[in-house]
Amino acid sequence: MSQNRTGLSDIRRITAPVFARQEAESGTQRRAYSLERGLLRWLLRATGNPPVRFILWNGEEIGISQEPTVAHVHIRDPGTLRRLALHPELYFGEEYTAGRVEVEGYFVEFLEVMYRAIARAPRPGLFRRVLHTWLNRPHHNTLDGSRENIHHHYDLGNDFYKLWLDSEMVYTCAYFSSPTLSLEEAQVAKMDHVCRKLELKPGQTVVEAGCGWGALARHMAKHYGVTVKAYNISRQQLAYARDRARQEGLVGRVEYIEDDYRNIRGQYDAFVSVGMLEHVGVDNYPMLGAVAKKALRKHGRGLIHSIGRNRPGTMSAWIERRIFPGAHPPCLSEMMQIFEPNTFSVLDVENLRLHYARTLAHWLERFEANVDKVEAMTDPAFVRAWRLYLAGSMASFTAGDLQLFQVVFSNGSCNDVPWTRWRLYNDSPSNKEKAWNPVTS
Amino acid sequence: MSQNRTGLSDIRRITAPVFARQEAESGTQRRAYSLERGLLRWLLRATGNPPVRFILWNGEEIGISQEPTVAHVHIRDPGTLRRLALHPELYFGEEYTAGRVEVEGYFVEFLEVMYRAIARAPRPGLFRRVLHTWLNRPHHNTLDGSRENIHHHYDLGNDFYKLWLDSEMVYTCAYFSSPTLSLEEAQVAKMDHVCRKLELKPGQTVVEAGCGWGALARHMAKHYGVTVKAYNISRQQLAYARDRARQEGLVGRVEYIEDDYRNIRGQYDAFVSVGMLEHVGVDNYPMLGAVAKKALRKHGRGLIHSIGRNRPGTMSAWIERRIFPGAHPPCLSEMMQIFEPNTFSVLDVENLRLHYARTLAHWLERFEANVDKVEAMTDPAFVRAWRLYLAGSMASFTAGDLQLFQVVFSNGSCNDVPWTRWRLYNDSPSNKEKAWNPVTS
Repeated sequence: MSQNRTGLSDIRRITAPVFARQEAESGTQRRAYSLERGLLRWLLRATGNPPVRFILWNGEEIGISQEPTVAHVHIRDPGTLRRLALHPELYFGEEYTAGRVEVEGYFVEFLEVMYRAIARAPRPGLFRRVLHTWLNRPHHNTLDGSRENIHHHYDLGNDFYKLWLDSEMVYTCAYFSSPTLSLEEAQVAKMDHVCRKLELKPGQTVVEAGCGWGALARHMAKHYGVTVKAYNISRQQLAYARDRARQEGLVGRVEYIEDDYRNIRGQYDAFVSVGMLEHVGVDNYPMLGAVAKKALRKHGRGLIHSIGRNRPGTMSAWIERRIFPGAHPPCLSEMMQIFEPNTFSVLDVENLRLHYARTLAHWLERFEANVDKVEAMTDPAFVRAWRLYLAGSMASFTAGDLQLFQVVFSNGSCNDVPWTRWRLYNDSPSNKEKAWNPVTS
Repeated sequence: MSQNRTGLSDIRRITAPVFARQEAESGTQRRAYSLERGLLRWLLRATGNPPVRFILWNGEEIGISQEPTVAHVHIRDPGTLRRLALHPELYFGEEYTAGRVEVEGYFVEFLEVMYRAIARAPRPGLFRRVLHTWLNRPHHNTLDGSRENIHHHYDLGNDFYKLWLDSEMVYTCAYFSSPTLSLEEAQVAKMDHVCRKLELKPGQTVVEAGCGWGALARHMAKHYGVTVKAYNISRQQLAYARDRARQEGLVGRVEYIEDDYRNIRGQYDAFVSVGMLEHVGVDNYPMLGAVAKKALRKHGRGLIHSIGRNRPGTMSAWIERRIFPGAHPPCLSEMMQIFEPNTFSVLDVENLRLHYARTLAHWLERFEANVDKVEAMTDPAFVRAWRLYLAGSMASFTAGDLQLFQVVFSNGSCNDVPWTRWRLYNDSPSNKEKAWNPVTS
């Protein structure tokens, strides 16, 4: 497997200090954990013997692959082994964060190898599926619950995110329209890609559901001549967004509103939501669609951009518990619950999975470059948790465990849609207005 | 509503002879059909008073719209009125075919207005929905049933289809990459669009499920340097396909196989199916996906092209009964039953609905230009049925009642996918091979 897959050469190799080896156990101590050792061996077999070795506290090695190992996983003590064997998806993250598990070797590649191994594994039996579903059950997103979940993640502090996001603070998948783009350029390319898909024309109005730090709203107003109302429930993000809009002279053209997407009012030429759907909850999809239906003018266009999956499934239990409470990456049949009950017409779906792996490689590289500052702002456990989250997400997108879907839609009876997608790929910034005249037949 | 929407100016205006008016009815006769008259008025009100007038056998007019009418619908006798009022979706087709209903005015536009009116109508109550579902229940597609359904439509006789299809006999949606393309050019553009989406490279192998008269298989072999196995169960189509392949020196590069897609054997670099899914039946989608999974090499690409809908629903009852027995146009959440159970990754969905309206306008124009020959080969009822089928389909695609989805997919763990769709829109036939080098990061 090439180290260069992501274009960032050494980001997969993150090593960490390894614990001092403890004294050898007595025979009684060894027997006490033979069940857990057996379970770990069984897990390795069930996942097709990935090229990984587990090193126990006493130096004992567990690992059965014949291939060269991509990583050695050090387990500090018997309790850690027990928890890992019981529910690896959750406790790998917990124990890694606590520093009781260390990975020596290629960290991202180790995670990717494990995700691919798990994906290849035979389907678990009913009991394990039910247990897994229960352990991974998502939180319900009531209006208050949503606020709490969003504050958990997005109000960590703008200064923290500034350390590893691009200069516009875009915390969603970038679009590397050319392999030479920097992260900054790829985030601008993503915003242009979205604006072109929405066929924005000067003078139009846009509503954005979940605007993050507000970069897309500012970009649309500045470069496409539209006015934007952008909704968000994260106070720290909104404070930053308003500040930037003031600095850039966009007051009156971009309005940032502290409210839930369910409270969107008014009618617009475009409805856009980038990276919010993950927090909406499948039960609420028809309602999100109804909100878009009400908000969109007859000939309006909509775009929803979201992390997704190839088949129904839940977010990693650890990510859902520690990083993104209430988050769920939908498969396309689930996403259709936004559009089908509201008789939207889906015009275009694009899967940008590998672009997210590349985006995450950039974020992880910047995070590691600033790891001392992050640790000074937080604590070592936070650093470890965030490293695992970024590396694990990169591995998930690379392994095909997660997808990134951009879905363009319009009212089902609207014929004012582009004939082809040619203009998405044949437009220079200088002739935007000319280019967006509709193709007439 | 512009007459030029489809780019073919007068195809919407097809008039037909109107019956001689009968003698006025007696009071008793009028009362005998007052229920049906009431029901027809209720149907018009329930569909928002479309600009249509119904003219009964005695000269009485029913119609409540204030707008200028797009058509006058003549109803020959009381029995026809009764059947129309009972189940308009089925009996409009039956009675039109039998010549007991005539439409004076713009035929396609009349159908489009009616489809739009029905789509806008409030949701019917439970009883009507259940009745509607039962009346419109699809036929099940067993292996034998499939053969019977397919023979019903595709073995009508190659000479009949030659009268109104393009010279390559492509009986699926064309792709008008530029508005000036002829039908012939647009069918070639569609085949190129499909080949580019599949990223065909010389020397690769392709399997096609449901190949019609075999144009795509020949095009791939001739212009993309691949070898193709193409499956179909229509004997007449296969005879034509094999003949053309012989004439064009493609023997050994294209093999046409008379068998069901469920019997596909071997492994290929690409799996393609254009216009077969409509006949597969939703219950069989996971199996179709499993067939594609087995047939596709690890780094292979697949494409399924199908008529679809914005929300779950059935084919028009009349079309399902008389034209396409067993046919069902899926919505995207239904189509996902092909991909999700088999852990395919959906890479790209494109909706080409308006291209199908334009394709049908060309077919209808050619059909009308050859209507005397068609009638000499068949009978007047066949001519009327086929006119309604072509005009009704054109109206359905224009009104947004039907969609055309092209879905590109790959194995979920395959990273050998294009970075962007740029090459779909920036490739000339002369540099095909150069263009299909993969984009590396």
